[in-house]
Amino acid sequence: MLNKRIFDYKNDENIELFVLIKSAETRIAKNGKQFIAFNFSDQSGVISAKFWDASKEAIATFTPGKVVYLKGKRELYQNNPQIKIFKLRLAKESEPQDPALFVQKAPEKRAEIEAELNRYLFEITNPTWNRIVRALLKEYQKEFFTFPAAKSNHHAYAGGLAFHTLSILRLAKALGTQYPQLDTSLLYAGAILHDLGKVLELSGPVATSYTLAGNLLGHIVLIDEEIVKTCERLGLATESEDALLLRHMIISHHGLLEYGSPVRPHLVEAEVLHQLDNLDASLQMLDKSLEHTAPGEFTERIFGMDGRNFYRPNEK
Amino acid sequence: MLNKRIFDYKNDENIELFVLIKSAETRIAKNGKQFIAFNFSDQSGVISAKFWDASKEAIATFTPGKVVYLKGKRELYQNNPQIKIFKLRLAKESEPQDPALFVQKAPEKRAEIEAELNRYLFEITNPTWNRIVRALLKEYQKEFFTFPAAKSNHHAYAGGLAFHTLSILRLAKALGTQYPQLDTSLLYAGAILHDLGKVLELSGPVATSYTLAGNLLGHIVLIDEEIVKTCERLGLATESEDALLLRHMIISHHGLLEYGSPVRPHLVEAEVLHQLDNLDASLQMLDKSLEHTAPGEFTERIFGMDGRNFYRPNEK
Amino acid sequence: MLNKRIFDYKNDENIELFVLIKSAETRIAKNGKQFIAFNFSDQSGVISAKFWDASKEAIATFTPGKVVYLKGKRELYQNNPQIKIFKLRLAKESEPQDPALFVQKAPEKRAEIEAELNRYLFEITNPTWNRIVRALLKEYQKEFFTFPAAKSNHHAYAGGLAFHTLSILRLAKALGTQYPQLDTSLLYAGAILHDLGKVLELSGPVATSYTLAGNLLGHIVLIDEEIVKTCERLGLATESEDALLLRHMIISHHGLLEYGSPVRPHLVEAEVLHQLDNLDASLQMLDKSLEHTAPGEFTERIFGMDGRNFYRPNEK
Amino acid sequence: MLNKRIFDYKNDENIELFVLIKSAETRIAKNGKQFIAFNFSDQSGVISAKFWDASKEAIATFTPGKVVYLKGKRELYQNNPQIKIFKLRLAKESEPQDPALFVQKAPEKRAEIEAELNRYLFEITNPTWNRIVRALLKEYQKEFFTFPAAKSNHHAYAGGLAFHTLSILRLAKALGTQYPQLDTSLLYAGAILHDLGKVLELSGPVATSYTLAGNLLGHIVLIDEEIVKTCERLGLATESEDALLLRHMIISHHGLLEYGSPVRPHLVEAEVLHQLDNLDASLQMLDKSLEHTAPGEFTERIFGMDGRNFYRPNEK
Amino acid sequence: MLNKRIFDYKNDENIELFVLIKSAETRIAKNGKQFIAFNFSDQSGVISAKFWDASKEAIATFTPGKVVYLKGKRELYQNNPQIKIFKLRLAKESEPQDPALFVQKAPEKRAEIEAELNRYLFEITNPTWNRIVRALLKEYQKEFFTFPAAKSNHHAYAGGLAFHTLSILRLAKALGTQYPQLDTSLLYAGAILHDLGKVLELSGPVATSYTLAGNLLGHIVLIDEEIVKTCERLGLATESEDALLLRHMIISHHGLLEYGSPVRPHLVEAEVLHQLDNLDASLQMLDKSLEHTAPGEFTERIFGMDGRNFYRPNEK
Amino acid sequence: MLNKRIFDYKNDENIELFVLIKSAETRIAKNGKQFIAFNFSDQSGVISAKFWDASKEAIATFTPGKVVYLKGKRELYQNNPQIKIFKLRLAKESEPQDPALFVQKAPEKRAEIEAELNRYLFEITNPTWNRIVRALLKEYQKEFFTFPAAKSNHHAYAGGLAFHTLSILRLAKALGTQYPQLDTSLLYAGAILHDLGKVLELSGPVATSYTLAGNLLGHIVLIDEEIVKTCERLGLATESEDALLLRHMIISHHGLLEYGSPVRPHLVEAEVLHQLDNLDASLQMLDKSLEHTAPGEFTERIFGMDGRNFYRPNEK
Repeated sequence: MLNKRIFDYKNDENIELFVLIKSAETRIAKNGKQFIAFNFSDQSGVISAKFWDASKEAIATFTPGKVVYLKGKRELYQNNPQIKIFKLRLAKESEPQDPALFVQKAPEKRAEIEAELNRYLFEITNPTWNRIVRALLKEYQKEFFTFPAAKSNHHAYAGGLAFHTLSILRLAKALGTQYPQLDTSLLYAGAILHDLGKVLELSGPVATSYTLAGNLLGHIVLIDEEIVKTCERLGLATESEDALLLRHMIISHHGLLEYGSPVRPHLVEAEVLHQLDNLDASLQMLDKSLEHTAPGEFTERIFGMDGRNFYRPNEK
Repeated sequence: MLNKRIFDYKNDENIELFVLIKSAETRIAKNGKQFIAFNFSDQSGVISAKFWDASKEAIATFTPGKVVYLKGKRELYQNNPQIKIFKLRLAKESEPQDPALFVQKAPEKRAEIEAELNRYLFEITNPTWNRIVRALLKEYQKEFFTFPAAKSNHHAYAGGLAFHTLSILRLAKALGTQYPQLDTSLLYAGAILHDLGKVLELSGPVATSYTLAGNLLGHIVLIDEEIVKTCERLGLATESEDALLLRHMIISHHGLLEYGSPVRPHLVEAEVLHQLDNLDASLQMLDKSLEHTAPGEFTERIFGMDGRNFYRPNEK
Repeated sequence: MLNKRIFDYKNDENIELFVLIKSAETRIAKNGKQFIAFNFSDQSGVISAKFWDASKEAIATFTPGKVVYLKGKRELYQNNPQIKIFKLRLAKESEPQDPALFVQKAPEKRAEIEAELNRYLFEITNPTWNRIVRALLKEYQKEFFTFPAAKSNHHAYAGGLAFHTLSILRLAKALGTQYPQLDTSLLYAGAILHDLGKVLELSGPVATSYTLAGNLLGHIVLIDEEIVKTCERLGLATESEDALLLRHMIISHHGLLEYGSPVRPHLVEAEVLHQLDNLDASLQMLDKSLEHTAPGEFTERIFGMDGRNFYRPNEK
Repeated sequence: MLNKRIFDYKNDENIELFVLIKSAETRIAKNGKQFIAFNFSDQSGVISAKFWDASKEAIATFTPGKVVYLKGKRELYQNNPQIKIFKLRLAKESEPQDPALFVQKAPEKRAEIEAELNRYLFEITNPTWNRIVRALLKEYQKEFFTFPAAKSNHHAYAGGLAFHTLSILRLAKALGTQYPQLDTSLLYAGAILHDLGKVLELSGPVATSYTLAGNLLGHIVLIDEEIVKTCERLGLATESEDALLLRHMIISHHGLLEYGSPVRPHLVEAEVLHQLDNLDASLQMLDKSLEHTAPGEFTERIFGMDGRNFYRPNEK
Repeated sequence: MLNKRIFDYKNDENIELFVLIKSAETRIAKNGKQFIAFNFSDQSGVISAKFWDASKEAIATFTPGKVVYLKGKRELYQNNPQIKIFKLRLAKESEPQDPALFVQKAPEKRAEIEAELNRYLFEITNPTWNRIVRALLKEYQKEFFTFPAAKSNHHAYAGGLAFHTLSILRLAKALGTQYPQLDTSLLYAGAILHDLGKVLELSGPVATSYTLAGNLLGHIVLIDEEIVKTCERLGLATESEDALLLRHMIISHHGLLEYGSPVRPHLVEAEVLHQLDNLDASLQMLDKSLEHTAPGEFTERIFGMDGRNFYRPNEK
Repeated sequence: MLNKRIFDYKNDENIELFVLIKSAETRIAKNGKQFIAFNFSDQSGVISAKFWDASKEAIATFTPGKVVYLKGKRELYQNNPQIKIFKLRLAKESEPQDPALFVQKAPEKRAEIEAELNRYLFEITNPTWNRIVRALLKEYQKEFFTFPAAKSNHHAYAGGLAFHTLSILRLAKALGTQYPQLDTSLLYAGAILHDLGKVLELSGPVATSYTLAGNLLGHIVLIDEEIVKTCERLGLATESEDALLLRHMIISHHGLLEYGSPVRPHLVEAEVLHQLDNLDASLQMLDKSLEHTAPGEFTERIFGMDGRNFYRPNEK
């Protein structure tokens, strides 16, 4: 029974398994007592649970990063699944204890992602763009392959940033074949750098929050800064058309001023990057939600899709 | 010299060529005299021209559909190219007279488009969708392969509807490979039918205007009507999940209520169809504009892209 | 005392009466125990109540559709009246048990509504419209006279759909007298069909929810489908001007694209139908709220009126 | 032939008739010469015309308020009818010269409008409202019965203000019958005063422009001022509930803050007044446009109806 | 220890002090028992607290306006500070009991504010404006110096209205020096009257709510009424340019129709008054929030600043 | 007579004076002939004029930057003043020929502006901000003191950028006195740099257009780049709180994302800078328009003030 994962269970089924405490927030209940609002995770996803009448010891024990033995029941609360806790204790020495075993991962292996990404580097034939992209990927390699692509919403798991980037590159390649007028060098360079500023905007892959620089400048300005510095170091003129085009790709990729791009796309490749970014993020969000929804049912309302709920058709 | 086409000339260059009168509107000038506002076309595109102090004879002679010999000068008027007319006469018998030679065409041949489209039909494995799509394609085959995809904006040429449909199918195929969770049967069926209502909304491939049904119901309701009728004829239940899913694909494909969809997408495939429709339309509009723009210049502002102008980089 | 109805009591008054359980939702309280969130109804309206620390037996007993004896106190919670439950038990055999006695009804009797509606049918002199309307009213007669006009908001009671329709017809008649240029045949036909799609969009008069067709297509597309099918069966051309006008009336009646009409009104009668629909819905919502508000007080904020609260003047 | 009025002619027909110069604006043509942009009117409506190469004498002669003999041709310019002038001269002594004969009028006679309005006064049974309304109607009687209801858009003719007011009163009466919960005293009082501020906002029935007070305060604040002053003079407390309710009716009648109401309606009668005001204005605008449109055609786009064009069905 | 004020304590520190009950609302907890939601205040600010399982006696004893002895702990709840109550009792006779000692005050003394305001009166050299302003300040002197400037948000303390007015006058004076084209007479007169309608819109400095006149007419229409009445009494023509200009200053000062101004500013001084009003309100809101925020932290999200949070830099 | 400047004349007055050709655009008139659309300027402002039937020689002669002798008449065209040209020729040797004499200037002398700006530099006591500001002012000194602050709208004259900056500094100083909690060091540093990116975004003080970098990146990203580079050169860490605060001041100064700031203000000083920037720009635009408007009249509609027109009161 301990082999099943969270989302292998159905609603109203009793559960017994090991999970990781992803977050644990102590709050005051309406009856004046403290409780812990948990998010538990394993490789099948994340689920919430409330631990009522929490003692000081419990609060001190059950902290983020710990692997715990959990007995309870999966329930539905306001259309979202949650766990009713019957028993909770730390995992013993003889039991699984490595947090890395309980974390969602990119659907492909890091080594493969890295290898495939590298192949795209070779196809950036413009030397200015190639040098800038290589320099920045080298500088932030570790973060690039371990950070999530967002704090929540889409690709919010370790390695999500690199996987999201790779997905866009693949779409870009398909488009390059179908629309030969597109400059794939520029499209690939822009795709690789478009969200790299997140490694400076976010605190890291675990317990992700915004840095001060992230709050005050945002990831678009932060990556533009890195490109400027890289040009300075490599002796490339930031005012050359090549540099302007690449920087424009990145700063315009949110598509609309309201979404934080200081200028809208004015290059066909910039427009395409913006649309592909949207497309991949939508698909990833929908995929995550539909996976936890039964055939013939609607998902919960998805914040990142304007609050729409989506239907999962019955299997034929 | 007569071998050059409209957009083979540069601004401020004298021109001499045969063109088709695509539209001719008689107006009153500010000096009280009549003039003709022409749109001339050949296979390189469409350009406007004004014919001042037009006599009754000129107005009666130079009507849409005629091929004419044109001598003049290409100029720039408020950032858009136009022709200053020096001489205009009907093409003689010994000269080219077939309007079909002066019309923009889909960049691929009709036979090839048709063949490729047919291959997609085989990949619609769901029998309900397959039968509906085949029945409607058969009923409107002629219109489907000759209508434009829109009155102006994108794919506004004979055959544009079929070519736009094929482009979306190709994108859909690429996506199906990258995101295996997508139901490509549904995506292909939706893609083929999504704009088919335009054959009822628009009057035809030439001098395109809106029909009364187009004005009062719009192409989304018109194609939904056709699907309903087809189901009735084929004995398929319109209330089956299969029929509902396909109809939802079509009626939601504008994405937003503000754009005329009575419901927003609530299926992952419907969201994808909407985004691919957008993507292909954007690329086609940009391509048309950039083609007429010199390297190092910006296009005119493009209405269908929120009035943005786009930069055509210098060639490297 | 048992003769008084829910809204015959004032706030902070003890109550004792029979009510119907309109809905009963089991939730988990912040102290970890289960409670039932009830909506009780009788002919004076609907009121909520919470049943704390609910046992399994209570949850199994007090289900929607049961008539119960209720002792408690009417209170004010966040400006809305609710019941604090002192005692709750099923009604005994000797006590009232027919749910039909505890349901809000249209303010007029069904037979009278039906008779008056029929008189309007005679005034639809255009034969195409008359035949379509009669055929559809006949097909959905039972649903038309028992469904609510909406899931909540306005006319959300059994028979609400027919009563709302009749109210619009009466307004339309008054307008026809004042503005003789209006085609009342068209206006009446449009009014009768405008919301008939709700009998397909909603699940029924009790515990009303959306059907899958309602979620994926919406009531506007669903009634348009019915008109199309009816034309087919009656041998009427859907592309005749008469059919187009009637269909336009229905699909444009939400007035704005944002509200789900695929086209905006382009007929004076369509614009009028839209405005009268609004007017009657507003008056019904306001009436319901003001009835439960004391003179000299404001109602709660009304969602369907953009969250405004309304003042009930002191009686003179 | 001189018995026909402007809109008795069709497009492309030669015309010969007497008209009034409603407005005459001298402008500089693109060829550097002056022309006069006329609006001519008779009882059938208003039409524009351009008088090219206007001499100083012509400019001095053809001024607003003059009746002229006009020979020309009715044409279509950008979908709007206009007159091409062949001959223009002042009307001679033996010819019609009274401007009053060439002005659009309310469709009913002033004496009848006044008599009917007076009957509504008797139905305002609340003495506070009755006294305020009577005092203000007396003070502004002349203006009320001669002003237009707006500078352009709807009811833009002499007497339009009173006729628009009467139309709303009739609608209000019909509503009072159908919805007995409405306080018709308040509704009638509000309807009569709602636009009375226009007699201070606008300069008068001819060559209507905005006064300085109209520009800086607007008609809503101006009529509120008049109500306040009237209360002071009649010894009525402006802070009584009766006074507050009436003032609220008037200041909220534009419905939305964006349309210049400092507060939105918070009384059911205020909401109703707003909706009836809209309904009557819409019907008047549509009526005026459809009258000048042939069956089977669309009107021009109507500014006051969000730029929509409306279809005039074929007569059956 | 009893010398410390609420915001002299840090989060998680035990507290012991006297405070005033600013508001006390009895609610029903999720466990079905009553609790009191308090706002306590002293001169350092306002803080919330919940009193669980409140007996009838407690509810009757702890009412707004009472000074109480409070022992507890300052905590953080959803990023906002609140008090966890350990002990609560009424202040004894020997202890501080005057509510006036526990109320936030304008940062300057009333006598000084009044004296400085009077000096501005002398600088209103236009006699019409001077007489109107003096008359109204005299009539509402008491309220003007004791009311808050708003129910919550900015300057929400006794005397806030006068202090906010003075702040704007000071800014206006600085602007008058820098931009000599401004008419400071008009600017000062407008500034003094701009929010004076709040003394009629709001119920008073304590337990502030909206009056019926406030709800139905709003403070802009109410002060306009007072200006009209004052003109009548002083024999000044409301239609003089001077009166129109002053009234325009006041009714347009919210800047946008959406914010409740029936007209937008059309005088340079009216635009300036609007912007200075905004500027001072923003600074006051930010000041209040930053005061309760530690260096290196962000404030909570501030409703009146579009929900933004602000950073308090580390001290250097 | 030649001593009068453009705006010393009234409408309908004959004029005779020397002016500078600020811009000259050749267009095709509706009669098919070419004309020149001029903007003439002298120190009193800019006015438009059309030169009809322009010969090739005229087009070649009358180019931007030339001083010309102009005889004509000032007229009103669509509410805007323009010149009707009677005679136009180049200025002779004996006549004024220096373009610098015919250009609008900052209302204060450059030397004084520079001196006063330098005094503010001393008040930036934070060494990081002081060094960055000094370095950038030094690098772009010439441009800073000669560029306009915008292409059109406000401060659109040589030296406008420096004068606009100084105006904000003066306002900031007044605010610093009134609100001592403000960090004036930060406010001054932000004010000086806030629009400095315009020297890279715009092409220069004459015939101002956007550079490619201006179009693709915008002045906010361009000045951020300069700050980053300056930090690198001076050995200052861009990730220090000081650097982040200063950069945040600049990138957020448009206030709203819709206006091109990638983040909104999250520092009290950033909010203040945004509001002061607005205030000074508004006052400058209004001043320019009111100067050309007669007392008792409204200005034309001002684009930068949301299309509002402003009233110039009669002088008392």
